[in-house]
This record gives sequence, structure tokens and C-alpha cells, in this order.
Amino acid sequence: MPRKSEKYSVVGKRQPRLDGVLKATGRAEFTDDVVLPGTLHGKIVRSPISYGKIRNIDTSKAEKLPGVRAVITHKDTGGLMSGPDKLLLCEDTVYHFGDEVAAVAAVDVDIAAEAAGLIKVEYEPMKPLLSMEEATAEGAPVLHDFLTDNYADEVVMNFGDVDKAFAESDHIRIDEYTIQPTHSAFTEHHTVLADHSLPDRLTVWTPIQGSSIIKSTMAQRLGLSDSNVRIMNLNTGGAFCGRGADKPHHYLAAILSRKAGRPVKIRCTSEEEFVVYRGGGKYNFRIKIGVKKDGTLTALEAEMLHDCGAYIETQFIMLRFVGFNFQTLYKLPAYRYRGRLVYTNNPPYFFHHGAGLVAKRFALDSQLNLIAQDLKMDPVEFRLKNAVDKDYTTLCGFHYATCGLKECIKKASKKANWKKKYEKLPSYRGIGIGCGMLRSGGKGMYDHDTSAVFIKLEEDGKAFLFTGLPDMGQGSHTAMAIIAAETLGIQAEDIKVVAGDTDSTPFDVGAISQRGTFTTGNATINACLDARKQLSKTAAEKFGVKPSAIVFRDRKVYPKGKPEKAVSFEDIVSATLHSEEGRYVMGRGFYNPPTKGSDLVTFEGNPSLAYSFGAQIAEVEVDPETGIVKLLRMTVAHDVGRAINPMAVEGQLDGQVYSGMGQTLTEECIMEDGLVMNPSLLDYKLPRAFEVPEIDHIIVETSDPYGPFGAKEVGQGPIQCTSQAIANAVSNAIGYPIKELPITPERVLRAIRERDKRSR
Amino acid sequence: MPRKSEKYSVVGKRQPRLDGVLKATGRAEFTDDVVLPGTLHGKIVRSPISYGKIRNIDTSKAEKLPGVRAVITHKDTGGLMSGPDKLLLCEDTVYHFGDEVAAVAAVDVDIAAEAAGLIKVEYEPMKPLLSMEEATAEGAPVLHDFLTDNYADEVVMNFGDVDKAFAESDHIRIDEYTIQPTHSAFTEHHTVLADHSLPDRLTVWTPIQGSSIIKSTMAQRLGLSDSNVRIMNLNTGGAFCGRGADKPHHYLAAILSRKAGRPVKIRCTSEEEFVVYRGGGKYNFRIKIGVKKDGTLTALEAEMLHDCGAYIETQFIMLRFVGFNFQTLYKLPAYRYRGRLVYTNNPPYFFHHGAGLVAKRFALDSQLNLIAQDLKMDPVEFRLKNAVDKDYTTLCGFHYATCGLKECIKKASKKANWKKKYEKLPSYRGIGIGCGMLRSGGKGMYDHDTSAVFIKLEEDGKAFLFTGLPDMGQGSHTAMAIIAAETLGIQAEDIKVVAGDTDSTPFDVGAISQRGTFTTGNATINACLDARKQLSKTAAEKFGVKPSAIVFRDRKVYPKGKPEKAVSFEDIVSATLHSEEGRYVMGRGFYNPPTKGSDLVTFEGNPSLAYSFGAQIAEVEVDPETGIVKLLRMTVAHDVGRAINPMAVEGQLDGQVYSGMGQTLTEECIMEDGLVMNPSLLDYKLPRAFEVPEIDHIIVETSDPYGPFGAKEVGQGPIQCTSQAIANAVSNAIGYPIKELPITPERVLRAIRERDKRSR
Repeated sequence: MPRKSEKYSVVGKRQPRLDGVLKATGRAEFTDDVVLPGTLHGKIVRSPISYGKIRNIDTSKAEKLPGVRAVITHKDTGGLMSGPDKLLLCEDTVYHFGDEVAAVAAVDVDIAAEAAGLIKVEYEPMKPLLSMEEATAEGAPVLHDFLTDNYADEVVMNFGDVDKAFAESDHIRIDEYTIQPTHSAFTEHHTVLADHSLPDRLTVWTPIQGSSIIKSTMAQRLGLSDSNVRIMNLNTGGAFCGRGADKPHHYLAAILSRKAGRPVKIRCTSEEEFVVYRGGGKYNFRIKIGVKKDGTLTALEAEMLHDCGAYIETQFIMLRFVGFNFQTLYKLPAYRYRGRLVYTNNPPYFFHHGAGLVAKRFALDSQLNLIAQDLKMDPVEFRLKNAVDKDYTTLCGFHYATCGLKECIKKASKKANWKKKYEKLPSYRGIGIGCGMLRSGGKGMYDHDTSAVFIKLEEDGKAFLFTGLPDMGQGSHTAMAIIAAETLGIQAEDIKVVAGDTDSTPFDVGAISQRGTFTTGNATINACLDARKQLSKTAAEKFGVKPSAIVFRDRKVYPKGKPEKAVSFEDIVSATLHSEEGRYVMGRGFYNPPTKGSDLVTFEGNPSLAYSFGAQIAEVEVDPETGIVKLLRMTVAHDVGRAINPMAVEGQLDGQVYSGMGQTLTEECIMEDGLVMNPSLLDYKLPRAFEVPEIDHIIVETSDPYGPFGAKEVGQGPIQCTSQAIANAVSNAIGYPIKELPITPERVLRAIRERDKRSR
Repeated sequence: MPRKSEKYSVVGKRQPRLDGVLKATGRAEFTDDVVLPGTLHGKIVRSPISYGKIRNIDTSKAEKLPGVRAVITHKDTGGLMSGPDKLLLCEDTVYHFGDEVAAVAAVDVDIAAEAAGLIKVEYEPMKPLLSMEEATAEGAPVLHDFLTDNYADEVVMNFGDVDKAFAESDHIRIDEYTIQPTHSAFTEHHTVLADHSLPDRLTVWTPIQGSSIIKSTMAQRLGLSDSNVRIMNLNTGGAFCGRGADKPHHYLAAILSRKAGRPVKIRCTSEEEFVVYRGGGKYNFRIKIGVKKDGTLTALEAEMLHDCGAYIETQFIMLRFVGFNFQTLYKLPAYRYRGRLVYTNNPPYFFHHGAGLVAKRFALDSQLNLIAQDLKMDPVEFRLKNAVDKDYTTLCGFHYATCGLKECIKKASKKANWKKKYEKLPSYRGIGIGCGMLRSGGKGMYDHDTSAVFIKLEEDGKAFLFTGLPDMGQGSHTAMAIIAAETLGIQAEDIKVVAGDTDSTPFDVGAISQRGTFTTGNATINACLDARKQLSKTAAEKFGVKPSAIVFRDRKVYPKGKPEKAVSFEDIVSATLHSEEGRYVMGRGFYNPPTKGSDLVTFEGNPSLAYSFGAQIAEVEVDPETGIVKLLRMTVAHDVGRAINPMAVEGQLDGQVYSGMGQTLTEECIMEDGLVMNPSLLDYKLPRAFEVPEIDHIIVETSDPYGPFGAKEVGQGPIQCTSQAIANAVSNAIGYPIKELPITPERVLRAIRERDKRSR
């Protein structure tokens, strides 16, 4: 039985984000705002070819340029790897356009750029492999010599008797889907300021999602002790999974700083952003689904091929995530998956908004619509029939203590007038549904998934909350403030969050896998309870009751049932400090979900204690002349367990619809010869504000038993539904299946032509 | 019975200070190193006369100067006081040369200075009162209209039957002493960077001894909530009691910042340093002492008159300190004190190195030498006869749980060959002894004297210790690291201290009254014990013993008596995080000495739990031609309870001998018409390195029962002995009493002439 929001005095209220004023007035500090005395500026020399040998590197001219303070090549990095398969600076081979070859630091950016240009690198170009087809063709040259072919990684999962299940199916359908490369298009470019001027200390200012992770990795690679690396993670201009780990510029700035003995800043240009750090590479899916006549799913077999570019980066994680997530939304008796990553000479890819799952979600949920059509079932009904429930356990072991999927589907379709609209809209108008789910943090990165929080209370009744969880713009600091305020019985604006500095904050795995609200939120509660206990002692003495009978609420403290006796929270804090013992109140707490992650071999396990679910319904209009899709309305229902801050939940829903519609309709890295041909925000087409549709928010609260006040993730959950909803709506509008993203006007026109050809 | 140092593996070992490399390589950050985007530079318009009326202030020209962003006068400060008797910006009267009249902020320092010059202030000068004699003369005009005379404050203490005690004395002596104004001569000028660009937030970077104090005071005066003021106290170039509180430049920068909407930096020039912020004003003492024939002190009556300048600043505290400290070193049956502060039109004075007590120490201990001479007693014997002991309680209630005074006197005189030298040195060579004591923190500033400490342990076995105690150069961060390391069983270099930011650090009264090692040290132990308990749980499970049987030492953890089973500290921390519960170790602790401060009316109480004692013996050579005194050797014995870091103790002893010899021999603010005539380090004569004598260190360890590992203060204790030792040595060398500081060549020659005149 869900707890009622009315029970809470802060949780569930609309709270503008606490850093709003700083952001709106331009006072929020980003890495590029940080100025250290004597800071140098770095530039990276990058490969101008997609594949080739390095014959010689001559840095002599660059070194002589006045103002240059350090020049580094592979000779200075001692074989340092910046990934499992990547030399930080190329020694004898470059693997992609933009591959890091050398770097310089100089007293200003212009001199650094001039020096970079003075470094003469002799290349012997080789024929690059620029597509998965070329890279996996019979007899294709092998790019990385630690392998015997160009498959960077492969995962096979097998649950249940798949062949038998297909054999017993009434209907089987196989479809193929293609998703073109996209880009995270961060508003803040990749930037780093590193001070490694002393050999045993490294401080790195950079926007990052997981300070602890980058800290450990950099320390390990650079031969430093963890605690001698300090990550300063100020505000972040967009992260979307794409700032989850260390990247070459972090190391280059550090090594340049070490060599020059001064801090070094590297700020990537727009071209570097797009050329080097892209979101998702190309995906090919082949999905086979079996159903009974009544629409019950019987078996699923999925194959994925993904172009991970020249280096594997984080895509081995995505490879597994996709494998898990074919079986998590709809009940399935049998499932088989084969996913492979393909090395090419394209620039390496990285996690992109949606935990790498948007492509898969689009493919599966689009195909389900086709199956429903085959069975002449309403897509909503078809989904409701197969949707997972509370207490369901997936084939791979994910267990759902709460599940609002059906509620989301029902509420969204009702609100969107699905029944009145589906198949009843005028031509070239369409409606489509997409569903999704995502975990609220959990095991995987380490054997633990610990967040720790520290809190100190000041005499004016305000609290400082210390967290290693970065707020990349999603509003997690405000969420933590609300959770702390509710626990302490004060207001969110009474909490100041101390964050963004690994020296000053307790350990936190970071803002990855949607773990913030759930895991750090629980740690926040624990820290606040520790502090509250100390205050209870003071209040209990004052009121002559047991500490357990003290109520903290609305900045007041009183014995249970006697609010008329209330004294202010501030007075109790002050009385504690000014007590005989002079007690200063500090609270410490941590949380690590008591669950076991997926086994690395069997892929069985329940990595998370809480999973969120959602359903979205898109209504579109297609211009048959131009092929332009106009997204008219999105109805968004999301089971967040409990809305800690409904205003922030809506912001998350809006932001993800925005990002999802971009990935679905317009965003694409146009590749030619291994180069991104549209490397700027002018050419890479993000949706503009006026293109964003009306969005109806439906917050479903299932009150998770493990979540803080019942909350689950609302991180990248909502975007799990968006693409397929829009794609299904477009398919519905034009009467022809959409099997490739993004759904550009050309592709729409091609689909209309194809439809017309077939219907002839 | 003192604990043996061997018992400890870190405490008592020589530990170079942890920030040494940063300081030595110029990487330590001071306020002036901080650059915020858009920072403006401020200049203060100061009174060019010592006393007068303001007829008009015209800021119009300054406001029109391009680059000027804010101009403020008293109209902008709304009657804001920056002290009990001082308007932040003068409205209709200026009280001293340099008094703050207006301030400007501009885009650079030169424009700010030009704008300051463009502010036209019309003054109507009045006859200033530039000496205590003028200010206290019959019919003298009253400077501040809330008083009826120019006595700023008065304290009278009376313990025992003083008149009776004098009546029963065998010998009574009255002497008068004069101490001229001195200056703290900070290597880092007064500097502030304030960001008050948002109305409800103020961040202040400034070197300060008590961040919590300035935070509260500024918040209160500016109408902000405590927690909305953040004090960033980076490294400090000298504090010496002189940075104990907020000063006008702090407020002016904040108000300019508020008006301009941008951060504002004010950095005082050398002239401003000397003109505005001086150490101690002029002191006149009249002391009457009674003794028995055998040298036993019977009664003491002291009068002090002190020129506090135009405003009272911190001198009301000094006034009381002096009163207490006449009775704390030698056993006294009866004591009377009358201290008064006199307002003049000299610039206001402030605490100076030695807690304002150097003048008093010089006066009393010099006079005691004269009494010993009168009684034909050896000054060392005379002191030993009267010296306080362990368990002694002074007339005002100070209780000595430990006391190494006699041990210090004995060891110093032995080491200095006192018996062979006293009265046996060649002419114009002299030897002198001085004794002193000081409290190790305690009550007074608030009803509590709380320090709180937080510690977090990282997986590499390193710890981050959070403290609000500023390290002004005395090495307290290193001391805390040693104390933490000893408690956790690791090494000092395993501890990183997080400090200098009131947002990030727990409450601490600050580095005042020598409370750091004692009070924050005890809090550090408590925080570390809290953390150790959590580690003990892991270790106990591992070894199958009780948690209380776990030993932490030398980065090893093992069951008591079984060091061969040891695992590394790092492994235990890591095992705790990677345990089933994923426990991250944080420790919290506080300490507030359980004692009661002095009563404000009766002056009775025991503000501190621990008092340090010392004795110093100076050997000097006087050039009878030039009057120049050469300090040949100082033998310094100090009862520190326990030397947490002998290297740092020696540094403190050296530093205070240095400062003490400056105050005694050369340092003086030459005053003329209310102006300091030597306002620079060129003209104000600090000792140079080559003038520092050989210093013999004798560390006396009495192992205080309340101190951390037995430690007491070694803050401003040692300087309590220096002046009188040197002065007594000079008196001894020339055969004539020294009654005025500093003992400049002129004063020496005058004394020699006086001696010769008298002996004729």
C-alpha cells in the first residue's frame, strides 16, 4: 500500500532547484571558469587520416616556439594506455581521424595551436575500414593485433529453451533495424584543467559523472595513490552517460602539467567534440519474435552488431546492457542474444543518452507493433497482455518489488485518448506507444554500490550535506536537499550541498546507472538519522520524554502529539552546541543496496533493488510532400516510485522527450571517410525549443519499499520510451514500418515511396 | 607519572610539516592568488587628518571615471558598525589618520586608486588627542559622545586583603614601565576577496585565525544567516593574534561587491598596513610588589594604562588578560589590578603577538629582578621560591593539573650555565631570566570552546581530516595529522587535511588562545576513535577476536599480542568497503573542555584545563659606544605537556624568540601627529635572520592528563618569557634597570648615562 505524499512535509512538494539562481544569473562555476595562477593552455595534435603508420614525429620547431612550455609524444607517456585497447598517444599507428598523436602546452591558446601545427608527423596512410561490412568481410585486415578478427567483443545469452519456444509459437516474425550514429552534443565542451605540477599530487577540474571512478582510474594509470588524485567536478553542461569515465584529454593535461610544472587547461573545440567524442555508433539489429495467437510472447532471439569505432571505450558495457534489456519489459519464457562489437576506423564511440539502450528500445518496441498488427491486436492491448508486473522476476533474475508498467500504459493511453485516436486519425496523422524500464542504480561497477553522505548542522539551523554524487543538471543536489530536509524536519532551502571535490566529499560511485536518488538518497537518510539522534537527545531532555518520542517537522521540534510545545529546529541545534558538553552535530551514513549483481558468465542476478517503468504516447503529423515529421504531443507516464520533487520529475520527463525526439527524428552524425561531416551545433540538428511538443506528465507512484520515501530512478528511464513511441506514431501516420533512425525527411519519403510501391 | 614517548609510533617523532613542499615551491595558495571571473579591485578612501568633522563628500567625479563599478560612502552602509564604537564608514567625524571614509571598486587597481583620489572630502580639522596624557588631562575634550571621558574601558580586580598583605611585607617596591607601540608586520598584507554579488550569499577569502567568529560577526552585521556566509581561509602569511577578527576592509569589500554585483578584492598597501592595522599601542604600568625577607611574595598591585587608539577593537580582551596574568606565574596571597584603556586619536590598536601580554610580562618579571637584587637573591632562586606548582590554584581560580615551571627554570639555568655566568660575566655582557605561562585554549569567546572534526577513510588507507582550525603557519595541520595518525595507527603523511572553508569543515572556534593542539587535537582523537571502531569490526571478524583486542599501529592491524598476524591498514579499510554491507568509514568527533570560564564580574573561574609554562635565559653583549644590544644566546625551556612534533615545537620556540627579540630590542612604531613615521618593512626594524642568536631548546614534557597524548599549548607561550629575559640580561650587562621597550641603542645609551650620573 503506497504511503501517501501528504505524510511528508517536503517530499512531493514542487521545489525549484536550489542552484537555479546561480545558473540563471551566470554565476554557476564551470571548469572553464577556473583560473589558476600560471595556467598553460594545451592543444592536442590529432591524426588527419583514418588509418596509417606513423613514420616520424618531429617536435623540434614546436619546442622552439616562444611561449611553448611542454611538448609530449608517445615517448613521454611511456606506453600509457588510456583504455584497454588504446595508447594514450599513438606510437606507430593511428586508428582513426582525430586519434591523439602529440600534445603541447603554451602560455596561451593561440601559441598552443601554432605549436601544434608546427609538429611534423609523417604518416603512411593505409586503407581504412569504415563500415562493419568492410571490417567483418572475409579476409578483411585485422586492425588490432591482439585479436584475430575485428570483433572487439561478443556476448551470448541464453535463457530457456528458445528453439522449442519458437517451435511452439503460432506466429514468428523477423525484422531488422538500423540506427545511425548520434552525438551527445554537450552544451559544455570537454574541458579539463589539470595541476600535476608536483609529482605526487594531481588535481583535475573536469565535468564528470563519476568522480570516484575517474579518480581511481587516473591514479592507477599514472602510478599515484588514489588519495593523491583530487577530482574537482564543478557544474556540468550535460552528461547523458557520456561523461562517465576518463578520456584522453584528462591524461594529456595531467602529463603536460607534470612536464611543464604548471597547471594546464585543455578545452576541446566544436570540431574536436564531434570528431572525437561521439555518442553512439551505428547499430544493426536482427530480432526474431514468436507469439501465440492470443498475443502472448513465447520467444525472442536478438542479434546486435555495433560499430564501436577504433577503440572499445565503454561499449562493452552497452553490449551487455542491451542483452539484459530485451527481456525486462515483457514477460518472456525463452530468450537468446548474440551481441557483437566491431572495430572499424571510425572514431571511437561512447555511451550516449539512454544508457546505450535507445537503439534497442526502438528496435524491439517497433517490432512489437508489427506483431500486433500481424495479430490485428491493438498495440496497447498487446503490451498490456505481455507487460511485466510487481513481483515478476525476469529470465536473467531482475526482480520487481514494485512495477507500475501497466498503470503507466493505462494512464497514458487514457490521457492520450488512444482508443479514440488509434487508427481513427486523419491520414498522415499517427499515434504510437512506446514502453521502457530502467534500473535505479545497482551492482556492476564494483562489488559494492556504496554512496556515503556526511552532514553537519550549523547554529542557524541550516545543514551542510556532503555528497560525492555529481549534479550534472538533473537536479540531484536539490533532491538530496529535499530528502535531508524531510528526514531532519526542515526545508530544502535549509540544506547547502557540498559536492564536486573528491577531497571534501565522502565516497560515492557517482551519477551513473540512475543510482543518485535511490542510493545516495538512502545514504542521505542514514546520515540525517544519525544527526537527528543527536538532536533528539537534547530535545528529549528538554521535554522530559524519550528520544524516540521527538517529532521533527517544518523547522519545529516537539514531543509526539504535542505540537503546541514546539521549539524551533534552530533552537534545538543551538541548544545542543551550547549544552554542557558543547555538542556539535554531525551525521554520517552510507547505503549499499543489499543485492547481488549479474554473474559475469551466466548473466544471472538482480543488480538493482528498484526498477522504474514508463509508457509514452506520441502523436505526429507527417508532411507527405517534404517528409518532415511534426511531433504534436507526447503523453508521458513514468513510475518513479515516489516523486521526491514533482517539478524536477517533470523536468526530467521534458528533457528526455527532448533528447529522445532528437535521436529519433533529426540527430545523426553524417559520416564520410571516417569523418563527421556535420561537426557543429549549426549542422548537427538538435531540436529547437519551438519544436518541442506539448508534453503531458503523468507521475505514477508505486512507493518502492527500498527507495528513499519510496522513490526510484527518473534518470534515463523516460527516454527508454520515447523513440519507439515516435517511430510507431510515424509508422502509423504513413502506414509503413519505420526501421531506421533517425527518421529524417528523406527516410520518411523513401518509406512512403516504398509503401506506395508495395501497395501497387 | 608521564607516559613515555616510546609508547607512540608517530607522536613525538620529528615530522617535517606536510605543507612544506607547497610553501617552499611557491604553490601554497594565498588569498591574493585567487582569481574569480570578473573580479573588481577596491580602494579605501582614508582620512588624511587625525581628528575632524566631515563637511561634505563629493563622489560624482569618481563615479564618472570609466572603469569604476561602485563607490560607497556612509550613505551606502546604513549606519553599519564595524566594531562596538566604530562606524564602518565615517559619517560626520573622523577619529584617526587613516579612518575609513569611502571606498571604490573598479576594473583594475590603478583605476580604483585614481577614483579614490577623485573623491573630494571636505574636512574641518580639530585638535587631536595624541597621547594618553592629553586624553586624560583635566578638561580634555571627550572624543566619543557615548562616554563622559576618554577612558574606553576599565577593569578592577581584587583578590585577598591586599592592604593587609602589603602592611605585613618586609619590603615593598614600586616601579613604572613603558612599552611603545609595535606592529605585527605580517608578511602577507591584509587582503580580502569578497563575493556578495547575490544578496543572500557572501563568500569571503581572507587570512584569518577564527573563521567561525568572522563568519558569525559578518553574518550578523550584514543581516545574513550564518550559513549563508562562507569564509575561505587559505594560507596565511602571519597571524600572531592580529588576525583574530573581522576588520573594516572585510565589510567594505563585501558591500562594494553587493553594489557592483561582482567579486571585489582589496589588498592593503604597506602604508595602509602600518597606518591602520598596528599591533599594540603604548602601555604604562605601575607595579607595587611586597615581599618577605626570604623572598616570598606577599602582595601585588598593578595599574595599567593603555592607549587603544581611536577605537577599542580587541583591546578590551587584552585589558582583562593582563589583569589575570599578574597572578598566574608566581604564588600570590593578595592581588589588586586596575587597568584602563584610553581613547586617543591614534589609529586603533589590535592584538599583537603574545596575546597582548608581552608588555605585562616584561614589566612584572623585570621588576621581580629588581626585588631579587634588593634582597640580594639570585633571580633564579627568587623565581624558584615563588614559582607555581602542579595542583596550584591561582587567586582567580586557574588550576594547574600539570606544571613544569620549576623544571623549566632549573633545566634552562643549568643548560645556560647560569651559576657560572650570573654576576661573573665580563662588563657589558649580561645574562637574564624570564618566565611565562599561557593557557591552552579554554572558555571565554563562547560558553563552549568546541572543536569538531570529521574524518573519512579512503580505500588506499589514507584519511582526509576535516577541521575548521586554521593553520596560520604554526603547523597545526601537521599536528592534527600526527594525532590522527597515532590514533588510527598510520603515518602523518597518510592524512590529508581539509581546511580553510567554513562550508566544508566542521565548527571550530579557531586558532585563538592557543587552543589548536589541545582542543582540536582532542576532537581529532575522538573522530578517529569513531572511525577506528568501524574498522575494528572488520578486523575483529577477520581475526575472530573481540573488537577491543584489535591493535592499530604502523599501518598495520593485528590482534593484541599477535603482530605476526598483521594485515595492512589499507587492506582493512578496503575490506570494510568491500564487505557485504559496503561500509564506508567516516568518523566524527568533537571536544569541548569541561570547565567553566572566568566570571565576568568576580573574575573567578578556570577557563582552561591546561596551562603551559616556560623559562628563558638570554645572554647579551652591549656595545657601550653605540648602545647596540647583541643577543648572543637564548636558552629556551618550555613545558609543552607532550611534544606532538618536536620539530614543530622547536620551530615555535625559534619563531617566538625571533618575534620576542624584535619587540624587545628594535620594533617600534614611531608616532608623530598620529601617524606612523616608519610604515614599511624597510623602516620598521624587524630582526634579520643573521641577528637571531643561537637557541638552545629544552622541551619539558609533563604529560597533561587532559591534553591529546598529554600535549599542551606551544602557541604564544614561549614569547611570554622572551622580552623580560632579554631586558633582564641588558640590565645585568649595563648594571642599570631597563624600564622601557624597545631597548633601542638610544635608550641603552641613556640608561648608561643615567647609571653613570647616579653612581657619581
